[in-house]
Amino acid sequence: MSDQSLRPGEIPAPLGTGATIGILGGGQLGRMLACAAARLGFKTNIFEPAMRCPAGEVAAQVFSAAYTDRMALTAFAKSVDVITYEFENIPTSALDLLGRLKPIRPGRRALEVSQDRLTEKDFLNEMGCQTAPYAAVDDLVSFEAAIEKIGTPSILKTRRLGYDGKGQLRLTKAEQAQVALDYIKGVPAILEGHVNFSHEVSVIAARGLDGSVAAFDPGENVHLGGILSTTQVPARLTPSHQQDAILMAAKLLNALDYVGVLAVELFVTNSGLIVNEIAPRVHNSGHWTQNGCTVDQFEQHIRAIAGWPLGDGKRHADVIMENLIGDAVEQVDSLAREPGTAVHLYGKADVRPGRKMGHINRVRPAQA
Amino acid sequence: MSDQSLRPGEIPAPLGTGATIGILGGGQLGRMLACAAARLGFKTNIFEPAMRCPAGEVAAQVFSAAYTDRMALTAFAKSVDVITYEFENIPTSALDLLGRLKPIRPGRRALEVSQDRLTEKDFLNEMGCQTAPYAAVDDLVSFEAAIEKIGTPSILKTRRLGYDGKGQLRLTKAEQAQVALDYIKGVPAILEGHVNFSHEVSVIAARGLDGSVAAFDPGENVHLGGILSTTQVPARLTPSHQQDAILMAAKLLNALDYVGVLAVELFVTNSGLIVNEIAPRVHNSGHWTQNGCTVDQFEQHIRAIAGWPLGDGKRHADVIMENLIGDAVEQVDSLAREPGTAVHLYGKADVRPGRKMGHINRVRPAQA
Repeated sequence: MSDQSLRPGEIPAPLGTGATIGILGGGQLGRMLACAAARLGFKTNIFEPAMRCPAGEVAAQVFSAAYTDRMALTAFAKSVDVITYEFENIPTSALDLLGRLKPIRPGRRALEVSQDRLTEKDFLNEMGCQTAPYAAVDDLVSFEAAIEKIGTPSILKTRRLGYDGKGQLRLTKAEQAQVALDYIKGVPAILEGHVNFSHEVSVIAARGLDGSVAAFDPGENVHLGGILSTTQVPARLTPSHQQDAILMAAKLLNALDYVGVLAVELFVTNSGLIVNEIAPRVHNSGHWTQNGCTVDQFEQHIRAIAGWPLGDGKRHADVIMENLIGDAVEQVDSLAREPGTAVHLYGKADVRPGRKMGHINRVRPAQA
Repeated sequence: MSDQSLRPGEIPAPLGTGATIGILGGGQLGRMLACAAARLGFKTNIFEPAMRCPAGEVAAQVFSAAYTDRMALTAFAKSVDVITYEFENIPTSALDLLGRLKPIRPGRRALEVSQDRLTEKDFLNEMGCQTAPYAAVDDLVSFEAAIEKIGTPSILKTRRLGYDGKGQLRLTKAEQAQVALDYIKGVPAILEGHVNFSHEVSVIAARGLDGSVAAFDPGENVHLGGILSTTQVPARLTPSHQQDAILMAAKLLNALDYVGVLAVELFVTNSGLIVNEIAPRVHNSGHWTQNGCTVDQFEQHIRAIAGWPLGDGKRHADVIMENLIGDAVEQVDSLAREPGTAVHLYGKADVRPGRKMGHINRVRPAQA
């Protein structure tokens, strides 16, 4: 039964021991979600086109098929009690099919908003959130109008399928427009204005099936080469900014009638917080919760989509999360010897530059 | 290659990402070991005679076969890099076969000692540990001699295959000897004298492949009906008793040339610490470490058997672990709402009286 078949206001029963969580995507986020699900007595089935995947190793069943394989999608949906995902770029046709068979949590609205940078920016501004100035780019004419409005330096970003800095191009002069359009092969895009920010923070928040909301303490993020490098808690935030950030996340969760964990990336500027982007899923910048909270972001997400009460995400320690990217994973032996350090690896055999191989959490007693 | 084929003093290389841990036994301990292994980038294969098992749901592969199935045992051994176990009563013939193909950690000596209560008691006394007074019981004649030596009240325990109070019988009068012998069907047993103790504690300690040793803080255990009910840290122990307990565990680990996690149950008495029993594996009384330490007992065991450095098991919180036995699991909805409480369920569908269905850890800031 999909969530659509419920009467308005009706809350589905929580899933019990032995129920099966379906996850679209078999990467490291799926792997850590599956382990969190196991902790709560659930089984996990994974849908993933790639033949071998990190999450498959901790799943009860793996469906290795394309997102266009309607028979495989149907079998997957029938094998699970609820469907969630570890990445937002799931083809709409697959979602249409799956959504008729089983509840998809978080729901379609969250995916529509986060799959398209223009829809996302429009939504955020409607919600009263500040964003970078932006304009749609569909062709050279609209691009030139966008440059006129936004100025340079600015960033051209494809509306869809971007992650870890992919599908982005920095524009320093208006004359680069044609080259930039050719580079992104003319797909729909937006031009984003430069934001003068001191640092980036993110809020990982969750909303339960009953509408209750909980947020982890904001983390402070440092990116290198477009990829998250470290997240540190506590973040440098004034008490009022910290409160603003959490209230903003809660407002977005409610507006999207959201179920599960949502990540909100924010720039800290002299004129307040500016939303960079949102991700409708557990997020790399929330990995610190594994060793800083009694209930981490993965379990919080599973609790939410299973209709359980949200757990206690209070932070009991200061944590610096550091991604192990590419051959940084080769330091694991010395990292594993560090007092207060937890090592998390994703089981990926091939080390490639820019590939997320694992992460560490350096844990220190919380400063009062 | 088994550990036996190494030169004396040679330490095998640590297992790397993608290596496979083999676990004999597919219960909840295996399930939690498999999740800890996944955290470090390993796959897990399970050998378990029962068709559906808690650990199988988070394993890469499950071998469902009897311990007498030599083909299945061989295939299992060939599929993994190292073999460990979640229970100590593995048939010797299976161990013989497996040990020729792959390293078994902890090794055979630990199993020999812990599989037989008489061997265990002899070993502990040789090591200078205090135990309850005991005597071997093989027949009515030796039983009567044992009663003469030990007195009543005392406890008759089968030498093998006892757990959670099974295979035990309390003797209050010498005249009950024949009935007691009949009850245990005349299998080899020991008679144990009564120990006047104030409470029970256990030490969960680990030894790495390099001989390094680490111990978690001792926990204080309460049993109900022969089954562990709660474990609390910190335990009520004088500083000198705490040190004694940890040094004793370290001594046993070294004497057994042990690799992995060992549990030592101790009675606290007016005349010092008395060893109740040892278990060559992760232990129910160590579940508190999941929410009280950066590296818990499951990861510590995996680190040890994989040849990794032992992790930081320092306690960062006070914890009360409570088992959810039988229909106690039905309280899970209200338990999941408690601030500071972590819920752990094992995925067992059938609720039966006395069956361990899960546990909770109630976490509080550590008192200085």
